[in-house]
Amino acid sequence: MEIREATEQDFDSIWPIFREIASTGETYAYDRSTPRDEAFELWMEYPRKTFVFEENGEILGTYYIVTNHSGPGDHVCNCGYMVSSNARGKGLATSMCEHSQEIAKLMGYKAMQFNFVASSNESAVRLWEKLGFESVGRLPKAFNHPGQGFVDALVMYKWLET
Amino acid sequence: MEIREATEQDFDSIWPIFREIASTGETYAYDRSTPRDEAFELWMEYPRKTFVFEENGEILGTYYIVTNHSGPGDHVCNCGYMVSSNARGKGLATSMCEHSQEIAKLMGYKAMQFNFVASSNESAVRLWEKLGFESVGRLPKAFNHPGQGFVDALVMYKWLET
Repeated sequence: MEIREATEQDFDSIWPIFREIASTGETYAYDRSTPRDEAFELWMEYPRKTFVFEENGEILGTYYIVTNHSGPGDHVCNCGYMVSSNARGKGLATSMCEHSQEIAKLMGYKAMQFNFVASSNESAVRLWEKLGFESVGRLPKAFNHPGQGFVDALVMYKWLET
Repeated sequence: MEIREATEQDFDSIWPIFREIASTGETYAYDRSTPRDEAFELWMEYPRKTFVFEENGEILGTYYIVTNHSGPGDHVCNCGYMVSSNARGKGLATSMCEHSQEIAKLMGYKAMQFNFVASSNESAVRLWEKLGFESVGRLPKAFNHPGQGFVDALVMYKWLET
């Protein structure tokens, strides 16, 4: 397997993963019916870099990295990770998150921030904590979960070791 | 005085305020040397609405309102306020913040969030607290202050009464 930078052509494989995850409305702050062209913009154009996790020629996961705030905040990056439903539970998110932290440091970032983690997404919260992220904020009822209604969203943050 | 929606022409008056505030690097997550066309995009095009505070035909302050996150987060808005240096201490920020909360409710938002308040900006923090905002997050060393170095940034949040 390898984690490598995504090409424009890779979006053919990224799009089904994006659509599947966004359409649940349970984890990402994207419209559940985000059209493909907008998804391309959000995942491939807006970020500074996008990567794919590839195994035997198949793209099973993807992540992006972007500057979270400009100017006085531009030493902190933000990342988002997506894993195909048929590749869950195999440590891909862990691999991609560790990879992203190395890339972030190479790009000159000093910290990484997740702005909007649904508190209901307990497995993700646990995973980020295991990987050294701390919940530094809790936004009351900021995430409108399709099944659970308004739940809190967490802000998670990690200062990157150098 | 009145607070009204900004027109494109108003940007001639908004731009000196924006430039003055961004150039200090002390309060906003904008590049200190943000060019005019980018400032126009950030303040006038990206937000859902932009307002100006006008007194005797002069624009002394301005604010924007925008959806903070899409999809499951789209009931929470974000606002930014700027007051001309020659009109400080007269309650303009308070007036604009109160106005923005009414507008936010009319636009259907349930909460308002400030994503990145420099903790060193004590007068702003005090003001937002007085207006009902709570510090729900603290981002360690996320704000690179030109004089003080890395200081914490606060996430402030208010559920809007209906």
